[in-house]
Amino acid sequence: MTVTPVPVSSVPAWDDEADVVIAGYGIAGAAAAVEAARTGAEVLVLERTGSWGGAAAMAGGFIYLGGGTPIQKACGFGDSVENMAAFLNAAMGPGADEKRIADYCEHSVAHFDWLVECGVVFKPEFFAEPGWEPMGDQGLMYSGGENSYPFNTIATPAPRGHVPQMQDKKQGEASAGFMLMKPLVETATAAGARARYDVRVQALVVDDGRVVGIRARQYGAEVHIRARRGVVLAMGSFAYNEAMVAQYAPRIAGRPAASVEQHDGQAIRMAQALGADLAHMDATEVAIFVDPQQLVRGILVNERGQRYVAEDTYPGRVGQLTLYHQNNTAYLIIDGDAQEEAMAAPSPGLMMRPATWVADSIADLESEIGLPPGSLQSTVAAFNDAAARGEDPLLHKKAQWIKPIGTPVGAIDLRESTGGFTLGGLMTTLDGEVLHVSGEPIPGLFAAGRCTAGLAAWGYASGVSLGDGSFYGRRAGRSAAR
Amino acid sequence: MTVTPVPVSSVPAWDDEADVVIAGYGIAGAAAAVEAARTGAEVLVLERTGSWGGAAAMAGGFIYLGGGTPIQKACGFGDSVENMAAFLNAAMGPGADEKRIADYCEHSVAHFDWLVECGVVFKPEFFAEPGWEPMGDQGLMYSGGENSYPFNTIATPAPRGHVPQMQDKKQGEASAGFMLMKPLVETATAAGARARYDVRVQALVVDDGRVVGIRARQYGAEVHIRARRGVVLAMGSFAYNEAMVAQYAPRIAGRPAASVEQHDGQAIRMAQALGADLAHMDATEVAIFVDPQQLVRGILVNERGQRYVAEDTYPGRVGQLTLYHQNNTAYLIIDGDAQEEAMAAPSPGLMMRPATWVADSIADLESEIGLPPGSLQSTVAAFNDAAARGEDPLLHKKAQWIKPIGTPVGAIDLRESTGGFTLGGLMTTLDGEVLHVSGEPIPGLFAAGRCTAGLAAWGYASGVSLGDGSFYGRRAGRSAAR
Repeated sequence: MTVTPVPVSSVPAWDDEADVVIAGYGIAGAAAAVEAARTGAEVLVLERTGSWGGAAAMAGGFIYLGGGTPIQKACGFGDSVENMAAFLNAAMGPGADEKRIADYCEHSVAHFDWLVECGVVFKPEFFAEPGWEPMGDQGLMYSGGENSYPFNTIATPAPRGHVPQMQDKKQGEASAGFMLMKPLVETATAAGARARYDVRVQALVVDDGRVVGIRARQYGAEVHIRARRGVVLAMGSFAYNEAMVAQYAPRIAGRPAASVEQHDGQAIRMAQALGADLAHMDATEVAIFVDPQQLVRGILVNERGQRYVAEDTYPGRVGQLTLYHQNNTAYLIIDGDAQEEAMAAPSPGLMMRPATWVADSIADLESEIGLPPGSLQSTVAAFNDAAARGEDPLLHKKAQWIKPIGTPVGAIDLRESTGGFTLGGLMTTLDGEVLHVSGEPIPGLFAAGRCTAGLAAWGYASGVSLGDGSFYGRRAGRSAAR
Repeated sequence: MTVTPVPVSSVPAWDDEADVVIAGYGIAGAAAAVEAARTGAEVLVLERTGSWGGAAAMAGGFIYLGGGTPIQKACGFGDSVENMAAFLNAAMGPGADEKRIADYCEHSVAHFDWLVECGVVFKPEFFAEPGWEPMGDQGLMYSGGENSYPFNTIATPAPRGHVPQMQDKKQGEASAGFMLMKPLVETATAAGARARYDVRVQALVVDDGRVVGIRARQYGAEVHIRARRGVVLAMGSFAYNEAMVAQYAPRIAGRPAASVEQHDGQAIRMAQALGADLAHMDATEVAIFVDPQQLVRGILVNERGQRYVAEDTYPGRVGQLTLYHQNNTAYLIIDGDAQEEAMAAPSPGLMMRPATWVADSIADLESEIGLPPGSLQSTVAAFNDAAARGEDPLLHKKAQWIKPIGTPVGAIDLRESTGGFTLGGLMTTLDGEVLHVSGEPIPGLFAAGRCTAGLAAWGYASGVSLGDGSFYGRRAGRSAAR
């Protein structure tokens, strides 16, 4: 199906219409719908699947917020707009969009308030264990390595991963993201937003350079939906578009994760066809498939047997550094005691991994893994030597996790054990207008969420996608309704 | 100046016209001009500066060719199409375009013959020293790490860096790239191609979706040039467009090198404005500013004092790995004897660097550099231990360069010592047609050279840019003339 823009003159008839037409009912679409509808505009959301939710409803539900939110305060953490920005400028780069980060941080507390006012509930309780997400219904957690090296030397550590409360959460069941989406969709509906499901958006309809509608397919037939004021694209990433991944982010090819198949890049293509500009197309979130309770208790080495990242930082950073800098090859060296401790630790434990190899000496383990002779021995000797003094001069792991590696010792094979989703997309103004390569906004076209380039360039923190998706979704909705 | 496409109806009058209009008179433009003119088409080349040449005329002149060229044979090197492709698929990836590589390798010998027939002279002599380019007028050199680890385990090593002969070449003077451009431009001129200089191309003129001309400025006035059959964009990379670099390749920001200021990304913008697709926008060539005669004689360590690349591989690979994987931070550890040897070695020597720090022991050097305590000592101990046996189990440096590090010992500070140019750009067919995001060619629009995504995705080898620029420049010229 072609993404080539459709001239309005070739539209046979409008099948539906609204002031603001939003494509995609995930986090960005829902936030846009609430704000557009609240201005009094007539709002129609087109969703490809049979229901609202998108990737957000299946996600862990982190929203990256700070600068002194009520939850941060209740949990005893100090933070400021400047401190939050200092962290994000370092952690989202190289290449981070400093203006967008400044804007986001400045209005972060107000965005928290808006979410609460929409009915999202955050429990003022801090989850302190290593992990990908809270084990229970705690509302706050470190989610970007704020309290780990090197970021703890750049900004004052403050947790900013805010998680909607899900009572009686069971391991592996449902998700906090659902508890974010449900109140937002209910709020949008109460404000008058209408939704049309099973609609597959295909191309933009244009009238003399202005976007005035959408061509889509529904139940096998072509439909044309008129947007009297504006179209908001909120259709997610391109993680599931193999051709685009090969062109723009080949290193994540074959390993989409924390994403949904609807993330086919169509929104990006449709806007590109109109001359829209792009940014950070190679940027991706990268998870590493091992439990953080294990990570913090071991030492992670690359294919040369060398350590390369503080094992107690944000596991998504471990994932990025492993995939991009270490040839997607890593081994977690963990001794028997540490492995037992990890297994017994309070954590969701879904990514807990058994040792791939076990040996009675580092030399034997090195040889079993197939690492260069002497490499792992030299690494462990240096680590143990400093660890005996409670230090980690190489990578500054926190003291609580420093312990010499003993025997028997195992290694967890983490080759090709990463996956993630794309972060790049359409260039937008801070008001959610889609920018043409000429530098001017494309009239009538707005976008938010993972089909746009957001806060992250090279780095990432959990909560950034639901964060910028909801934040700039609101902006896009308001702009489109104008 | 806007890149928004100009409807033909708004063109007041054509100021000039030809069958094929080529924008840019560097390597891709010259190759396109020769081939288009030889079909009998009327050809006009628009060049922004006052003369032909582009980045090519200032370059070292490498053209990456193989599969058994007469020069390879004369120098005693076996090669095949399959062997060349095996190397390129490994060295240009992850994400290398295998179809393009297969195409390029298959016709590589014929492309060599074509260059010779156009008057380019290659001297059948091999240059065997470590270096960025031959010291004299030798015509063949390793230019991509073909004979180094890991590529020497993937394909049979064969040098493929073909360099046009420049007699009486003096260090730092002129360039072999000039000796490539001169005969090509003479050939194009003899075939009837006309050139118009000081023309700054700005936007494409379109008629119902077809590209029919170019809007440009010349001596302060707007001019419109009609292209009866096709426009070929050959305007170089976006290395000097700060905004585009920030959006697409932020890690190379602030360090353009081996590039010219005319590489402003305008061709990419103009085509994007028509919905053209892009690829590999984050890919860059990266040079590291140190003499390879020094590199091979030292050990290169990162900010953790760890080795990470065989020091005797292609220095451009060392540059990429340093910039992208090692936080643009490296130190070359080289002892007094090795430094003396390097200084006395036959090499252009323009990048020879004095030691930044000198010490009587590795421990002292480690502390002077500010490396983590014990890190460099552990690395050198392991290296020396294996070097005493003539081995490098960690990185497989070639035996001829393995020698234990003695004292006094120095370190060359290679922090922030990289630079390069962008490799990404427009998606094109193997016939040089520019692809729309819909997957279809944009009628009347062709492109080649560094404004297109070529052979390289993540990796690089010297000669790939003049190689794919000339090769696909020819294709684009022929296609446009049809």
